[in-house]
Amino acid sequence: MAIKNLNDLFKHTLQDIYFAENYITKSLPKMVESANDEALAQAFDSHLEETREHVARLEEAFRLLGEEPSGEECPAIEGIVGEAEELLEETEDADTRDAALIAAAQAVEHYEITRYGSAISWAKELGHDEVANLLVTTLEEEKNADAKLLDLGKARLNRKAA
Amino acid sequence: MAIKNLNDLFKHTLQDIYFAENYITKSLPKMVESANDEALAQAFDSHLEETREHVARLEEAFRLLGEEPSGEECPAIEGIVGEAEELLEETEDADTRDAALIAAAQAVEHYEITRYGSAISWAKELGHDEVANLLVTTLEEEKNADAKLLDLGKARLNRKAA
Repeated sequence: MAIKNLNDLFKHTLQDIYFAENYITKSLPKMVESANDEALAQAFDSHLEETREHVARLEEAFRLLGEEPSGEECPAIEGIVGEAEELLEETEDADTRDAALIAAAQAVEHYEITRYGSAISWAKELGHDEVANLLVTTLEEEKNADAKLLDLGKARLNRKAA
Repeated sequence: MAIKNLNDLFKHTLQDIYFAENYITKSLPKMVESANDEALAQAFDSHLEETREHVARLEEAFRLLGEEPSGEECPAIEGIVGEAEELLEETEDADTRDAALIAAAQAVEHYEITRYGSAISWAKELGHDEVANLLVTTLEEEKNADAKLLDLGKARLNRKAA
């Protein structure tokens, strides 16, 4: 698809994020299973619920724009998640795997944070205020998920030190 | 390579970042060329200089750890940069391309910010304080680069409104 203006770029980015969120819903169950620490497994499980909400919110955004929800293959999220899955296969020790899981999930959150940030600024520039508000709600949840992962990293360290 | 403990995970992550930083030094000249706005082109050019410093700092980190600098292929950065290059090819309008360039570069910065963040916390946990300090210097530069890109996005918007 040729991108002729900011509106095309904005829609392309929504399709990219829609693909990414759907991809993450498929990856999170594997992360729940790989986690050794129960609090970490629970955090992934509740983020899976949130991610399903993010997918639904994007579908609402497409509807508001008069578009059918559709995804555009996103090599970035495939690379980030693929790298994480490969690393987890290579990591035998349970505590080290938890450290790797936290880092991998933070990389996913940061990707989403940057993409939603760009999409929100373009939605505002294009006058799509209602869509911008929907995306802001999701962005806040992604930032909270990243903060939660940071806390779980600290908790892991405290548990090891104890 | 099997990852048996946190030290292995830490070294694997340094190799991943080393590959990524080298990859970015090859991608930035294309971004300089693609930028329409002169301030944006200059920002990419000066970040290229910084990125070369980051590569040198990682080589110093490997040396401090008694290791030869080496890279581990990083599908995440290949995906992020590959997606950006594809998008730029599809974008004809100069102002829209600048918006896409800023967003793409922010995605790269966010990837580096999250990876350096994890590496620093593990370096500290493992007692590699001197290495941690080196990585903190780079992390601050990556955060500044991201803040600079945000400002350039706002400047783009003001220019358009004028």
